Amino acid sequence: MSDVFEQLAGVIAARREADPGESYVASLYAKGRPAIAAKVGEEAAETIVAALAEDDAALVHEAADLWFHVLVLLAERGLGPAEVEAELARRFGISGHEEKKGRGSA
Amino acid sequence: MSDVFEQLAGVIAARREADPGESYVASLYAKGRPAIAAKVGEEAAETIVAALAEDDAALVHEAADLWFHVLVLLAERGLGPAEVEAELARRFGISGHEEKKGRGSA
Amino acid sequence: MSDVFEQLAGVIAARREADPGESYVASLYAKGRPAIAAKVGEEAAETIVAALAEDDAALVHEAADLWFHVLVLLAERGLGPAEVEAELARRFGISGHEEKKGRGSA
Amino acid sequence: MSDVFEQLAGVIAARREADPGESYVASLYAKGRPAIAAKVGEEAAETIVAALAEDDAALVHEAADLWFHVLVLLAERGLGPAEVEAELARRFGISGHEEKKGRGSA
Repeated sequence: MSDVFEQLAGVIAARREADPGESYVASLYAKGRPAIAAKVGEEAAETIVAALAEDDAALVHEAADLWFHVLVLLAERGLGPAEVEAELARRFGISGHEEKKGRGSA
Repeated sequence: MSDVFEQLAGVIAARREADPGESYVASLYAKGRPAIAAKVGEEAAETIVAALAEDDAALVHEAADLWFHVLVLLAERGLGPAEVEAELARRFGISGHEEKKGRGSA
Repeated sequence: MSDVFEQLAGVIAARREADPGESYVASLYAKGRPAIAAKVGEEAAETIVAALAEDDAALVHEAADLWFHVLVLLAERGLGPAEVEAELARRFGISGHEEKKGRGSA
Repeated sequence: MSDVFEQLAGVIAARREADPGESYVASLYAKGRPAIAAKVGEEAAETIVAALAEDDAALVHEAADLWFHVLVLLAERGLGPAEVEAELARRFGISGHEEKKGRGSA
């Protein structure tokens, strides 16, 4: 399990109940699922643009924005990074617990 | 650092040199950055649609597809999940090494 | 009103009732609104990529794909290009009936 | 040819040379092609969300936003709605000059 992504999911959960006027996360939840979903699309477009501009700092920045908003969207449905990691681990035959063992079969 | 995402980045790096006729990852790299970027946009759209359809299994599936293609796009520029995690950790004041300590300040 | 877009809306309406095995439009409607919406996102991503690659032929091709799928999406809700044109004409103070008169006030 | 879209292309061309502080179109061109492309992605995501929310007024609004930004993106490359209409007319065997004649063969 990713320490950072799991902790970020915790941050999102904690801020969800905050004042929408003081927390960006709370303001997203106040706007609702459609607005969060639209932000995922917006950040994906910015990720594409940064990659094609060969701007590595912008690419990392936009990929972080994208992943953050995907985590907010997942959390809105009671889901988190663990489910996405489990899905990817299953597909690629890798394990989060036993590093590198799975690569051979992937 | 995420074990799964880091291992997945290893899988992507290993497959990148494979025969494009036998590896999906190699076929993406053979098509080039624009095609990989377009896939990120396609998967983002499918993630949005799954979220709005309230289909949790599809949402996890599409979010995994999206994140996988973002990792392929990052790797095309010599970047990986570690850079994205570092960016998010910096923004939210969390640390991947000392679990949960960062949450209070986030 | 655009002759071409209006006629294309007519083509879409006619094909909607066709055999999904023989008509791409009918196959889109058979898959339903979420699949049509996802195609709009996919074509938008390809339009972005073509523009950034400075490939004019591809840009026209992808913009045509994008607008075609938007028309399919609109038709699924009983809407068409006339509504979009009316919205844009209203915003920009132009008229489809009296050519060029509107430009001054736009 | 669409009167409205053609006139809108004229509006875009006229505003392109305006003060970016006073014209939204000029501000888009001042930011450059990557920013315009990112807006196309953002508006596509909002179009998808409006369609799935079954909000017809929002769908028309967002489709108009999307098409407007596509026209700005096309104009940045010296292209316009005529090229997109010609591409669609060619594909579907319709003609903008002789209304409805083409439908039979489409």
